[in-house]
Amino acid sequence: MTREELTEAIILAKKNKGLSWEDIAAHLEMGVVWVTSACFGNNSMPEAPATKLCSLLELPDQAMTTLMEYPTKSWGRDVPQDPLIYRLYEAVGIYGTSIKEVVQEKFGDGIMSAIDFSIDIDKEENPNGDRVIIVLNGKFLPYKTW
Amino acid sequence: MTREELTEAIILAKKNKGLSWEDIAAHLEMGVVWVTSACFGNNSMPEAPATKLCSLLELPDQAMTTLMEYPTKSWGRDVPQDPLIYRLYEAVGIYGTSIKEVVQEKFGDGIMSAIDFSIDIDKEENPNGDRVIIVLNGKFLPYKTW
Amino acid sequence: MTREELTEAIILAKKNKGLSWEDIAAHLEMGVVWVTSACFGNNSMPEAPATKLCSLLELPDQAMTTLMEYPTKSWGRDVPQDPLIYRLYEAVGIYGTSIKEVVQEKFGDGIMSAIDFSIDIDKEENPNGDRVIIVLNGKFLPYKTW
Amino acid sequence: MTREELTEAIILAKKNKGLSWEDIAAHLEMGVVWVTSACFGNNSMPEAPATKLCSLLELPDQAMTTLMEYPTKSWGRDVPQDPLIYRLYEAVGIYGTSIKEVVQEKFGDGIMSAIDFSIDIDKEENPNGDRVIIVLNGKFLPYKTW
Amino acid sequence: MTREELTEAIILAKKNKGLSWEDIAAHLEMGVVWVTSACFGNNSMPEAPATKLCSLLELPDQAMTTLMEYPTKSWGRDVPQDPLIYRLYEAVGIYGTSIKEVVQEKFGDGIMSAIDFSIDIDKEENPNGDRVIIVLNGKFLPYKTW
Amino acid sequence: MTREELTEAIILAKKNKGLSWEDIAAHLEMGVVWVTSACFGNNSMPEAPATKLCSLLELPDQAMTTLMEYPTKSWGRDVPQDPLIYRLYEAVGIYGTSIKEVVQEKFGDGIMSAIDFSIDIDKEENPNGDRVIIVLNGKFLPYKTW
Amino acid sequence: MTREELTEAIILAKKNKGLSWEDIAAHLEMGVVWVTSACFGNNSMPEAPATKLCSLLELPDQAMTTLMEYPTKSWGRDVPQDPLIYRLYEAVGIYGTSIKEVVQEKFGDGIMSAIDFSIDIDKEENPNGDRVIIVLNGKFLPYKTW
Amino acid sequence: MTREELTEAIILAKKNKGLSWEDIAAHLEMGVVWVTSACFGNNSMPEAPATKLCSLLELPDQAMTTLMEYPTKSWGRDVPQDPLIYRLYEAVGIYGTSIKEVVQEKFGDGIMSAIDFSIDIDKEENPNGDRVIIVLNGKFLPYKTW
Amino acid sequence: MTREELTEAIILAKKNKGLSWEDIAAHLEMGVVWVTSACFGNNSMPEAPATKLCSLLELPDQAMTTLMEYPTKSWGRDVPQDPLIYRLYEAVGIYGTSIKEVVQEKFGDGIMSAIDFSIDIDKEENPNGDRVIIVLNGKFLPYKTW
Amino acid sequence: MTREELTEAIILAKKNKGLSWEDIAAHLEMGVVWVTSACFGNNSMPEAPATKLCSLLELPDQAMTTLMEYPTKSWGRDVPQDPLIYRLYEAVGIYGTSIKEVVQEKFGDGIMSAIDFSIDIDKEENPNGDRVIIVLNGKFLPYKTW
Repeated sequence: MTREELTEAIILAKKNKGLSWEDIAAHLEMGVVWVTSACFGNNSMPEAPATKLCSLLELPDQAMTTLMEYPTKSWGRDVPQDPLIYRLYEAVGIYGTSIKEVVQEKFGDGIMSAIDFSIDIDKEENPNGDRVIIVLNGKFLPYKTW
Repeated sequence: MTREELTEAIILAKKNKGLSWEDIAAHLEMGVVWVTSACFGNNSMPEAPATKLCSLLELPDQAMTTLMEYPTKSWGRDVPQDPLIYRLYEAVGIYGTSIKEVVQEKFGDGIMSAIDFSIDIDKEENPNGDRVIIVLNGKFLPYKTW
Repeated sequence: MTREELTEAIILAKKNKGLSWEDIAAHLEMGVVWVTSACFGNNSMPEAPATKLCSLLELPDQAMTTLMEYPTKSWGRDVPQDPLIYRLYEAVGIYGTSIKEVVQEKFGDGIMSAIDFSIDIDKEENPNGDRVIIVLNGKFLPYKTW
Repeated sequence: MTREELTEAIILAKKNKGLSWEDIAAHLEMGVVWVTSACFGNNSMPEAPATKLCSLLELPDQAMTTLMEYPTKSWGRDVPQDPLIYRLYEAVGIYGTSIKEVVQEKFGDGIMSAIDFSIDIDKEENPNGDRVIIVLNGKFLPYKTW
Repeated sequence: MTREELTEAIILAKKNKGLSWEDIAAHLEMGVVWVTSACFGNNSMPEAPATKLCSLLELPDQAMTTLMEYPTKSWGRDVPQDPLIYRLYEAVGIYGTSIKEVVQEKFGDGIMSAIDFSIDIDKEENPNGDRVIIVLNGKFLPYKTW
Repeated sequence: MTREELTEAIILAKKNKGLSWEDIAAHLEMGVVWVTSACFGNNSMPEAPATKLCSLLELPDQAMTTLMEYPTKSWGRDVPQDPLIYRLYEAVGIYGTSIKEVVQEKFGDGIMSAIDFSIDIDKEENPNGDRVIIVLNGKFLPYKTW
Repeated sequence: MTREELTEAIILAKKNKGLSWEDIAAHLEMGVVWVTSACFGNNSMPEAPATKLCSLLELPDQAMTTLMEYPTKSWGRDVPQDPLIYRLYEAVGIYGTSIKEVVQEKFGDGIMSAIDFSIDIDKEENPNGDRVIIVLNGKFLPYKTW
Repeated sequence: MTREELTEAIILAKKNKGLSWEDIAAHLEMGVVWVTSACFGNNSMPEAPATKLCSLLELPDQAMTTLMEYPTKSWGRDVPQDPLIYRLYEAVGIYGTSIKEVVQEKFGDGIMSAIDFSIDIDKEENPNGDRVIIVLNGKFLPYKTW
Repeated sequence: MTREELTEAIILAKKNKGLSWEDIAAHLEMGVVWVTSACFGNNSMPEAPATKLCSLLELPDQAMTTLMEYPTKSWGRDVPQDPLIYRLYEAVGIYGTSIKEVVQEKFGDGIMSAIDFSIDIDKEENPNGDRVIIVLNGKFLPYKTW
Repeated sequence: MTREELTEAIILAKKNKGLSWEDIAAHLEMGVVWVTSACFGNNSMPEAPATKLCSLLELPDQAMTTLMEYPTKSWGRDVPQDPLIYRLYEAVGIYGTSIKEVVQEKFGDGIMSAIDFSIDIDKEENPNGDRVIIVLNGKFLPYKTW
């Protein structure tokens, strides 16, 4: 069972059972962005949540192995085109230098890990238009000298 | 006074007075990422904070006009190379599709604005290594039909 | 039913019934560029017009779901090659800076939304050659400071 | 006097005299986008408006020749980065195919000229947020067969 | 019948009947470059020559509609690789600026249309090696001011 | 004297003496596109026309050497942006394959040289708008087999 | 029979008959690089060697036509990745300017043809490691002036 | 003394003394492509030829050190534009795969070194047009297994 | 049997037999990176290890020939996207110039071969987090002068 | 004092004092690749080695601050051109997938850090040609799930 076949099977089962990504994530007791990303084949899923997912969505047996494989990550074009994703890219472009300046002032010379890292998304109700809150949380990694 | 000259003057004055970006932002009563970005010439500064900045850093007279100009934003290469900024780009690449899925499940078809938008950075102390917390907060904009 | 299959089915039904995009748009009581774009899979169609479209073109049942899905937008090459589309790209290239200058002089620092946005096309008869009138109408979004 | 020197001189004189692009365009009795674009060196200015501009802004003698030269047009990067200009690029990307479909349905096989062409910008006041109206007006050019 | 299927059918029929592009063009009373380009799907063919072509090559019924459709033009890579096409690209690269200078000296500020445009190819016999003569003939389009 | 300095000196002298490129080319008894291109530094000029040019424009002594040097040719971006030059690029893109087909049908397998090659430009007066005639004339080079 | 099918058939027959490219080239009395390149579909083969090749490898009837067609040449990526081909690309990059200088010093302003051109490869035995000798032999083409 | 200053000084001295690259190479008893390339700063020159070069061209003292430095090699654009260099690039593109096939048939799996490598250029007189002979000579390097 | 089919067959057999790459490499008495790379089709395998591999994994007969073929190497995008591979690319980017400086200081002007070359990977246990040790071992190749 | 000025000053002082990078590194008691990289402005230097470096090379006072600043890292082109650096890039390209496979087999799903990371270079004497040994040593970072 390839990654693409598995993702298709998950999306179909999800639609047929009328589940949202949040429902699935709640059942797996994991974060919704991480669960979505693992279902899209961009993260490997440990045994425990993979077992729950297979049983919740009644996925075929080979799904377990595929869910647990270590994926090769990729994302197509250097400059994304979908407006929602482009706006994130634009924010990194415009504010990247300022984020670097502020992070390194607070923590010293180093970076925020994108591996020991999580993303959460919240909705803030607001009479002027609800707001999307995206929280990136990554371990600070100081540059080693040697 | 060009943007580049102003940025250089700000950095010099900041160093001479021993101020951090957080000190400056606190004095201006604005967010530190926004202040840094305006000082780097990627945002225009309204009159009130611009006046405070000029007096705090003893900038020359022409600085006011330059600070208040509407900048043309840009960020160099399509794929950033500095590791700190690249990790943000990578996170957008790997998780962009999942973020889109989760945001649109929560809010409907639309995007997070990168204009009616803010960024905050926090430090979470952690015995296994401190963590960088970056919060993106943007207005949800539903696609118009017509 | 995939987006591609749906678009093909729509084009075939449209040809067989001898309808133009304007006929379809009039029947749906929506703008013709928006309708065309939703039929090409670049916009999601709300329930009411989707119902009308399915009945007008006698589309199969699964068409409703596909029409209402939130699409991932994309447009191929960074520089378009078809002459009609290239001329629009060229106009953005040559006049982009001037448009920015004039919009920001009229409205302040901000942008025209491409989300809360519509496009209309008119034909102006003219003895020296008819003229194409394309009207872009987008909400002004001022940059937030924080 | 190079194009760059002239543009700088115009911007300085405009600022010193407290004129807007609209004021200048009204004085020249030409469209404001066209005037801005000619002042930025992307269009050649005929003798009549060039004379008025030189006298209004008290530009040096050599300005006339430079204003009237035929420019080589260019716009830097294939994908623009400033958010205001990017949104126009994005609209061409997402709606280009639909615009092509609608224009060719209305006019036959051909394109909208970007040479026999004008752009106007209006502000539509709106309680939900003012709207930017950009009108592109180009001669329809049918493909020649031979 | 798709464009690709039609082009294949035309090439097969042409080979089987032992016709050259010049034979076909003479039968259609149109230019040979234009006929070739329409057969390759880069131009739409009006009803009269399309009828002649279908009867000459005994093409199936659906060929008429496909021949008359308005194509989306494209050409693959930005820099062509086949040596014959590359040499044309190189000539545009090396002589483009000089051609611009000479055309605008002769005609004023404007361009040569690539839409109201034709191409003819001749063979000039020459004892030192025959010569290829390519004639581009396009309407001059002066830039509009507004 | 560098190529750039020489080109600047030629353009200045040409403007001061009120000469057109056609005047200069007539004086040199050479084609106007070739003369323009040599003055822009894209072709080396043999001694006879170089002598005439130096005396006509009263260029300094070192100009002779620079005019006669063998240039390294280049043209900036892969996809040209100036509309006049882009239209030529577009014509090569759209018609390149058809030109190849017709040339090779007429001459056999080979190419048109871009070295043993000339370009001429004519103006065809026409009540519907004058026409630009560009004639490319290159030696046919058959592929060698070995 | 397409070029790809033919190339596959040739490689299979060559393997089954235990022939090397040199064996085939010797049988055709042509150069081995040229023969390999024609078998890979990058050169058209004249009737005489095509007949010999078909009989040597017992290729099907349609092979003759395909072998004799005029190919459209291409080579994938701008920067090759296979190490053997990259080293050639690198040599052109590093020594290109010097080769230009030396060729033009010896021959005058012009180029080496890549059309009236051949390549031969020899093996030079050497106790310190055998050496690959690649000989490029192209007609000198002087730039035409006009 | 930078590489650029040195190259300029060499070219000036060479012109003033009326020497060709072949004269210089003969004096240094080295190959002319190698000498040209070292003078252009793409190869480091050992002490013996560097001493001869400095004395032949009467270069300043610091020239020795600069000539002997180990250069960082580069060549600008991925696709060269000067026609002479492009033809070499095109030959690598079109014949690269065939060269690989023939070299590996003759030598086994490996490559031709571009480091233990030389280039020579000869002129072959020919009544049909003189021919440029470029000989690449590189050590064969077999792939190591481990 | 194509390279892709063979790689798939190897991966399947490896999974079914519960072998790791290290197990396979130990059985073949070759390095694990080299074995993995040959199984992925990026290196040709000599007869001895190919025989062992076929018998260990019970591969079909045609596998031998495919394993021993000389591959054409490639790796997709210029900038890799998978984080593990990107970090290696980043290390080459950031430290490339320093590595060059140190290698050439130690060895003279030349390079490290990527052909007479091996890679080994070790795991260093460490209470602060285990460490990946990658050892590149390549023959030094001095630049030839000639 | 900018990074560029500092690097130039270091290189000059190093040359004048006849020191190698290894001498400097030994004096600073740090790794030679790290020291070189910090001197080239790609790493920030802590106070202790910076003090030693300033005194060893007799650098001006402002050098301390510049040495200790946190740099923005970059490396020019996506595909490096200098042969020594290109070979490293090629090794990452060809072996990247195999390295990923082996590392993840040994360590689980995760990457090798390029931040908590060091590089050492050794020389292995060998009668068949000395060998360059490059050791990359990076902390293994497992992917976090959340």
